Amino acid sequence: MSDLPGIVVTGVSGRMGRMLAQIVAESGKARLVAGVERPGHAWIGQDIGVAMGGAPLGALVTDDPVEAFARAQGVIDFTAPAATVEFAGLAAQARAVHVIGTTGLEEADLEKIGAAARHAVIVRAGNMSLGVNLLTRLTRKIAEALDEDWDIEVVEAHHRMKVDAPSGTALMLGEAAAAGRGVSLKDARVSGRDGITGVRERGTIGFSAIRGGDIVGEHDVIFAADGERVILRHVATDRAVFARGALRAALWGQGRKPGQYDMIDVLGL
Amino acid sequence: MSDLPGIVVTGVSGRMGRMLAQIVAESGKARLVAGVERPGHAWIGQDIGVAMGGAPLGALVTDDPVEAFARAQGVIDFTAPAATVEFAGLAAQARAVHVIGTTGLEEADLEKIGAAARHAVIVRAGNMSLGVNLLTRLTRKIAEALDEDWDIEVVEAHHRMKVDAPSGTALMLGEAAAAGRGVSLKDARVSGRDGITGVRERGTIGFSAIRGGDIVGEHDVIFAADGERVILRHVATDRAVFARGALRAALWGQGRKPGQYDMIDVLGL
Amino acid sequence: MSDLPGIVVTGVSGRMGRMLAQIVAESGKARLVAGVERPGHAWIGQDIGVAMGGAPLGALVTDDPVEAFARAQGVIDFTAPAATVEFAGLAAQARAVHVIGTTGLEEADLEKIGAAARHAVIVRAGNMSLGVNLLTRLTRKIAEALDEDWDIEVVEAHHRMKVDAPSGTALMLGEAAAAGRGVSLKDARVSGRDGITGVRERGTIGFSAIRGGDIVGEHDVIFAADGERVILRHVATDRAVFARGALRAALWGQGRKPGQYDMIDVLGL
Amino acid sequence: MSDLPGIVVTGVSGRMGRMLAQIVAESGKARLVAGVERPGHAWIGQDIGVAMGGAPLGALVTDDPVEAFARAQGVIDFTAPAATVEFAGLAAQARAVHVIGTTGLEEADLEKIGAAARHAVIVRAGNMSLGVNLLTRLTRKIAEALDEDWDIEVVEAHHRMKVDAPSGTALMLGEAAAAGRGVSLKDARVSGRDGITGVRERGTIGFSAIRGGDIVGEHDVIFAADGERVILRHVATDRAVFARGALRAALWGQGRKPGQYDMIDVLGL
Repeated sequence: MSDLPGIVVTGVSGRMGRMLAQIVAESGKARLVAGVERPGHAWIGQDIGVAMGGAPLGALVTDDPVEAFARAQGVIDFTAPAATVEFAGLAAQARAVHVIGTTGLEEADLEKIGAAARHAVIVRAGNMSLGVNLLTRLTRKIAEALDEDWDIEVVEAHHRMKVDAPSGTALMLGEAAAAGRGVSLKDARVSGRDGITGVRERGTIGFSAIRGGDIVGEHDVIFAADGERVILRHVATDRAVFARGALRAALWGQGRKPGQYDMIDVLGL
Repeated sequence: MSDLPGIVVTGVSGRMGRMLAQIVAESGKARLVAGVERPGHAWIGQDIGVAMGGAPLGALVTDDPVEAFARAQGVIDFTAPAATVEFAGLAAQARAVHVIGTTGLEEADLEKIGAAARHAVIVRAGNMSLGVNLLTRLTRKIAEALDEDWDIEVVEAHHRMKVDAPSGTALMLGEAAAAGRGVSLKDARVSGRDGITGVRERGTIGFSAIRGGDIVGEHDVIFAADGERVILRHVATDRAVFARGALRAALWGQGRKPGQYDMIDVLGL
Repeated sequence: MSDLPGIVVTGVSGRMGRMLAQIVAESGKARLVAGVERPGHAWIGQDIGVAMGGAPLGALVTDDPVEAFARAQGVIDFTAPAATVEFAGLAAQARAVHVIGTTGLEEADLEKIGAAARHAVIVRAGNMSLGVNLLTRLTRKIAEALDEDWDIEVVEAHHRMKVDAPSGTALMLGEAAAAGRGVSLKDARVSGRDGITGVRERGTIGFSAIRGGDIVGEHDVIFAADGERVILRHVATDRAVFARGALRAALWGQGRKPGQYDMIDVLGL
Repeated sequence: MSDLPGIVVTGVSGRMGRMLAQIVAESGKARLVAGVERPGHAWIGQDIGVAMGGAPLGALVTDDPVEAFARAQGVIDFTAPAATVEFAGLAAQARAVHVIGTTGLEEADLEKIGAAARHAVIVRAGNMSLGVNLLTRLTRKIAEALDEDWDIEVVEAHHRMKVDAPSGTALMLGEAAAAGRGVSLKDARVSGRDGITGVRERGTIGFSAIRGGDIVGEHDVIFAADGERVILRHVATDRAVFARGALRAALWGQGRKPGQYDMIDVLGL
């Protein structure tokens, strides 16, 4: 047991954080060594499992990431851009694999993460499920095979608490479609149709965002021609698929050369 | 045969016009007496069937609606607002049932149509299919039965040539949902989500518009709660359903009291 | 707190049993008073929460249903036919509301349950979600409104562990469709198409069963005519909706007249 | 115009035959030279277009395939097995490309077709749409990439007149999935679930067949794991896509080496 890679979960009190702690602790493939929360958080000093209202998991919540990362081989991080940039630097110093599921990172954040990746392994992905990453590959291939007689639309549905649209995963799929066609998504993208739009412009890639209930995440990539349609669809019904993907990334990263990777690398697609 | 109600199709050279002429001529329930086009149109004076590139249908294309309406008991009209307002007046003078499938009518247009309906039967609907009108009724009933824990979203898909979003039918469904909840769609409507939207506001009704290929028309009304969803879906695959609905409306209107009606009346839902 | 109705969960170690115990304990609307398991089960004598690997829930697992039911106002039961028939008698003696989610009950079982219902309130339903019961009502109404030009098909998808097909809920929806049409499902039912089937017989109701992954439960009722389709769809993504429905039934039953009820009664649809 | 390849359509009075004649005549890429029907058919000797109730197409219906094929460079054939076997021999004698969309061919039929293909080009496919053939390729690739934790199900929907289940296209998709997994479809196939089925057996491939209305053809290949699903979907809404695919095959086959080909070859996927 003690030879298994040690994992720290940041933002451990959040919805993804709890899920990650549970999955790591139960995996049999890694040890949960600590959870990180911000100073002053009510959970600091408690056992993670007890803080979640369950049985003890044998790892404490701390507000000291430096100390926690020093005891770990991997850090799994679904927090917010500012925290993630800081954690990237600290994880690199600790030579721990940093798995980043945080969304909304800006250009400046990515530069700092890139700098950290010169010294350590970073795996970053907008979506850590096997299915979505497979879909991304297929989307690119189909967009290469079909000409612009096939209109491309990306439709996603998420829970009512999601604050941005389209989802990061929808944009990732749109990027793959644009790459397959050899165009820039920035030029091709049409989101949020409303009002008098005129006829659909050839070659554009449309996005629609549905919000409701507690939908975990559903994505359709539609290729629509006259008389027929091809649709690639991914349905996630359990957030655990993202947590399992993140753990898989942390394990895959052990012993790799420093650098930035994505889930396509991890999954060997 | 000569006792069957005579029908005039306006805008007969357009996609819906051709479809209507064919359906009326083949119905065995009505006579096609004329097609109307604007003065100078290449089809004027020709047999409608021949002008469409097929066998003769025994009725000519004319640019004189007054003369044509005088010979008819019904006028089926999927044209544009300005033409439809004029046809409403002429049909009322001829005491012919006026079936209006034209979309995009404004308040002022509706007033003029209302004036015409004092003298003749007018049936007007954003969508003349049996299925969509049934869906509209069900949407209202479900919205009455479920509380605001159920988020409502309307998603529609249409062909690439459609110039407005959301579709008239999507708005009709949204109106039914709002009526069921006792709110105004104007207040509840959210269309074209894009960017940082914040969390979904309770009680809103969201709209998404997908465009591609030659999709005839697909509408989903989604009621999404935690852990479950109810979805009402209509798929139209053949424009003929709208034409058959319009013919049914023209026949239903024979001998009715003057006034404005909709497809719910016609279908007896 | 002590004034809240006390609830016993039978088969508490199973997947639905655990879910029920959790939902009841956290509801704030009822007290969890005991879990029942068969004699010799490893959980007997333990706190339910602890036995599940979490925090204590303050109620023990017992193998004595008589004693447990005597302390309760409601019994929630998703077990197997033989156990359910016995629990029906015991719950009636204790004058506790018996909520039955057990499937696969045969005619003889239903008679015994009917006998018990002369002395106590029994709520029985193949599916306890609000959405499915709403769908059942709508299915009946639509089947009444549409003629046999509209072919009816019921399609369901469930997890790979499900041992029967079609699902009880699919059959419930099929019964509603048949009732709407005034026919018997026994006569109209076509399940498991395979091989040379011949053309679809008018008026039949078809069933298809998809199995895979951990799909909680999805049901489509399709009404397909020439050129258009109406589809009613229910998607359950969290078993908690069934548990919450069962708790709602147990609370609704308090103080009712003895008799058998279903979720349509409970939901007031 | 006279340099365009000449095409004969067999079974020209049927639904696909009419569609094919229209598409070939309007294509601008081929000449319609004749339609073939069985001796005694009412259309013999008439212009194909006139017989269909439209404008003349400049090609007659004949009951003499030998004479017709002699004037053609391609034969498009969506008829029945016995006729298709005969046409294969005659087309080979005439050195015309034989495009076969006929389904239900047995082993013995395929041998005779194979013999004919030694002398001429034969393109045979269960489904001639670009989209379905693309889906077939992707299905194989995904089945290679994913292990048996992902349950595979193929679901298809067709019009009420279809007499067999599952569809030929569904079986083609199933074959692709089986090939990707390195198993035989004969061993893995489960069709027509009904009754007590037991839990889903790992590694099987399930089939479901929906029938209703005038659905042209819809196919889903579902890969379902715990917590997520990938779905490949094809929707055909217009039989013209099959006719256009067949014409494309006939043109592609001009000047090729004798042999049997499929749509994957034609489309260069």
